[in-house]
Parts: sequence; C-alpha cells; structure tokens
Amino acid sequence: MSTQRFLTRSITRVSGQDSEVCPDHLALEEPLEIQIAYGPDASREWKTVAITMRTPGHDRELAIGFLIGEGIVHTLEQVEAIHSRGPHFGEQGFQHSVRVTLLPGEAVDLDRLQRNFYTTSSCGVCGKTSMEALELSSFSSLPPVSWQVEAKTISALPARLREAQAIFDQTGGLHAAGLFTHEGKILVVREDVGRHNAVDKVIGAQFLVGGETGAILVVSGRASFELMQKAIASGIPMLVAVGAPSSLAVEVAEKFGATLIGFTKPSSFNIYTGAGRVHLGATSVVHMAKVQEVAT
Amino acid sequence: MSTQRFLTRSITRVSGQDSEVCPDHLALEEPLEIQIAYGPDASREWKTVAITMRTPGHDRELAIGFLIGEGIVHTLEQVEAIHSRGPHFGEQGFQHSVRVTLLPGEAVDLDRLQRNFYTTSSCGVCGKTSMEALELSSFSSLPPVSWQVEAKTISALPARLREAQAIFDQTGGLHAAGLFTHEGKILVVREDVGRHNAVDKVIGAQFLVGGETGAILVVSGRASFELMQKAIASGIPMLVAVGAPSSLAVEVAEKFGATLIGFTKPSSFNIYTGAGRVHLGATSVVHMAKVQEVAT
Repeated sequence: MSTQRFLTRSITRVSGQDSEVCPDHLALEEPLEIQIAYGPDASREWKTVAITMRTPGHDRELAIGFLIGEGIVHTLEQVEAIHSRGPHFGEQGFQHSVRVTLLPGEAVDLDRLQRNFYTTSSCGVCGKTSMEALELSSFSSLPPVSWQVEAKTISALPARLREAQAIFDQTGGLHAAGLFTHEGKILVVREDVGRHNAVDKVIGAQFLVGGETGAILVVSGRASFELMQKAIASGIPMLVAVGAPSSLAVEVAEKFGATLIGFTKPSSFNIYTGAGRVHLGATSVVHMAKVQEVAT
Repeated sequence: MSTQRFLTRSITRVSGQDSEVCPDHLALEEPLEIQIAYGPDASREWKTVAITMRTPGHDRELAIGFLIGEGIVHTLEQVEAIHSRGPHFGEQGFQHSVRVTLLPGEAVDLDRLQRNFYTTSSCGVCGKTSMEALELSSFSSLPPVSWQVEAKTISALPARLREAQAIFDQTGGLHAAGLFTHEGKILVVREDVGRHNAVDKVIGAQFLVGGETGAILVVSGRASFELMQKAIASGIPMLVAVGAPSSLAVEVAEKFGATLIGFTKPSSFNIYTGAGRVHLGATSVVHMAKVQEVAT
C-alpha cells in the first residue's frame, strides 16, 4: 500500500458493545518546505517561504500554486526551474522540500512574504480595518462577465468533483479541489489533507501545463477568505463551495468582482456575490421586505 | 444582528428553476494579530508571533491557547497581562490585536517561533524524517492511564458538542471544539471559522480560569497533526474527532502516549492509538489474519 498516498495500519473499531482490531487506511500528512531561489545572477540566494502539512504528491504543483496565490509568481516566464529536494521516502520517492528558482533579476518582495500577507511592517493589523490590512494590492479585479453558467451545471459540480476524487473513499480524510470550465467541463482535480493545499495544487497544475485558467474553482468544504484570495490571485472568477462561506470571503469576492457560491447541493445553492455569472431560471423573486430588514 | 458573531446580508438562493433574494447569516472571519511582550525588565520588547483568521470573540483565550500549543507558555505564573488592542469594531467592540505580556525575565525562544515549529535553522525539513523535524522536544509524554472512558460516553460526545454550539445553526460555517472530563462532563466549548482557533480558544479558556486540564478534547471535523500537537502540548490525553485522522496525527499520538479516536458516530468509532483509555464492552475480537495482512 505504500505506493499510494495513504498509510495502512491496524486500528480498534468499536461498534456498540463490540470491538475488533482490523486494518484501516489513513490519509498521508507530511511537512513540505517551499523554498524560493532568486537574485541578480546565477549565484542566487534561497529562502524558505513556507512549511505546509500536506499529503505527498504533486508537490511541485503545490509550491508554484502557493507562490501564485501569494502574488509572488504571475507567469511561467518568471520561473527557471522547480526541483523536489531532500531524501526520498515511500516507494514513490516523495521528498520534503521543493525549490522554485526564478530567472536572474526577477524581483521578490520578501517583506511581503514575511508579513504572511496580512500585516504591514509599519503598523500591524490593529490600526486598520481588516480589508485595508489584507494586502491585496497586487491583485486585479476580475474582468466583467463574458459568460454565464447554467444553474443545473453549478448544482452538479460537487458530484463531479467527488467522482474524480481518487483517495477519498479509502481514507475519508481528504479535501478536494477542482477546476472547471464555465460549461462544467473538468480541467484538473487534486486532493489533500489541507484544503488550501488542494487549491494550490489545482492552480499550480493548470499553470504548469500552460492551460486555460479555468472559470470555476470547486472546493469540497467551506469557503474561507484564504481560498477566495487564491482564486482571485490566479484569475479564477467563480468559487463554488459545498459548505458555508465566511464573512471575509464574501467581502473579498465583492471587492474584486468574483462570484462566490456556497451550500451547493444537487438542486440548490446560494449565490453570495457576482450573481451575473449565473443563468437563473424562470422564476426569480426578490423579497424586498426581507432585504430591507437586512439593510436596517 | 451586529452584536452577534455573524453578519447578515442579502443573498440569491437558487432552488431548481426558482431563485429568490433573501437574508442569510455568515460566520464572521477577521484577522487577529497575536503579540508577545517579553524581556529582562519593564521596558519589554514586543513581537508579532502570528496572524490568524478567526471568528471574533474569546480573543484573549485564543492568544494564550496558541502560545500554550506552541510550547511558549506553560503556567499562569509566566504571564503578567493579556490585553486586547487596536480600534474597536462591531457593537461588541472586538479588536484586531492581542498582546500577551510575560513577567520580566521569562525566556522566549523566538527562533523556535520563527521556524513555525516545524524546521530547524540548520537544515530545514529536507534532511530529516518528518517526526524528527517536527520540533516537539519541549513536550512531555502523557502520564499512564489512570482512568477509562466508557465507549457509550465517547459515542455521545459529538452530539453533546453540537448541543453546546451557539452559532452553528445560524451560519453552518463554524468548527467547534469542546473539552470534557473522562466521565463526559462538559467543561468548555468554543467555535470558530478555523478549527485550530476553536481548539486554541478551548485550551486558553480552561488555562485562564485555572481549571482542570480536561481529559478529552472533542473536535467537529478531522484530526490533523496540528490539533493532536495542541492537545499534547496542553496535557490533554485524548482527542476525539468526528472526522478522519491523518497519518501524522496518529504518529504523534503514538509517540506521546495519547489516545486518538476518529469517525465518532452515535454507536461506533475507531481507536487509532491508546486504546487502554477506553473501556470496551463484552465482545472484543482481534482479526489476526487482517492485522497480519497490514504488517506484511
């Protein structure tokens, strides 16, 4: 089983008054160090920019996807090489470190990385409103609507993501993320113990093949600020979550003109922002009394 | 509604061919800066040690719980003061920063914090196995078993946690964590958009009232390495998760003698490590053939 991205070990399964010792599958979780090498010439410096607890596999995609989400890498032309490094483990020869080497002269704002993207060196978070403090200045607003997604296409996305998941049924421990076209065609799916890692892998995978950006990012869990930020940073205009969004995910989606959808079920979903990208059916009712209640 | 820890805004709810604009509740997510002030005398330095995206409320508990989980704070005697700082927001007057002031002379290993706990300055992660690289040296193994929890008590914990949750039913967007005695008595429950924050708040709350450590930490989601680490750092011997554990959560539980339970349902659960703390019923079967299959 060690060629897979899960571990098999014996556990005690308790059911009512009975218990038995039997084998079970566990989702692999291991630390990955993401390094960046940069500088004016061939003798580049390198720096560790993140350590993330991830499910091994697609590590180079994860590293480049992370750097895109942080606003450090924008195009393939900035990247000279991406190497996995360190001793190998497992039969698939996973490693614990990935180094992304930028072309000589590519500038990196390390202060920005140092701040974890959320603070400024001068004043920290405490002197600003949260949206001001979240340093999103390098991100562009998403282009105006050029297509619409059918409501039934959106409702079907979680099931399509689930079908494409390779490991979930064996461990029950993995989050999935998938990139789709606006017609619901699947482009790439990745899974990981960390939902942010699954999203980084999806974004990195599509970036490395130089494929289309994709219209819809689908996630198996909830939609946090962090996931919405990653979608915007990579130019994906629509995030569809199976679970609930947070307040800040909705705020950032609104600010950058993205579409955010949550509680996506086989026949229903909620649109939080950017409803213009969804083709709604026959009956569309606005309960003004209810909306006014919110505004007051 | 702004006195609550959720935000009300209007959304488009789509159901089959119908859609309506109506109000909905969102779980609040805002950044919190955790600072530590330390040094030999009253003119102490301060440093930002973390920025976390959290649901506002119980911020001081979150800050101190985080520092306990990182192995920085061990006893109340080390702490001089805990202040919320920065401009107020919302009707409850939440703030964006918490500063924990240690007593003069209390030592802080900032290199350790800098490394995010997972690397060493000399070699990074790549030259070590993951368990060696995870810097857990300041943690103690848990004491041997002095009590057992009834199987039916464990099965009932997720429902008891859910009952005690204040916000979930309104937003669907929050993780919960709760601390229980080994007899299943509830000590404290907290919830947050981030499951690690919910755990930090629970640990910090119990620490600040000087109450008993608690025997069982219950979490509404999956059990990652990070959550298991937090339980061990604060001396809680049993982690009960509603979802799946990761491979590294199981490894670290085993290394420190903790009990890790997952997939906890009303009449069944899986014990991954430390089965000695669970009182099992009449029938206990070991399927040796199945276990041998795992070993080979």
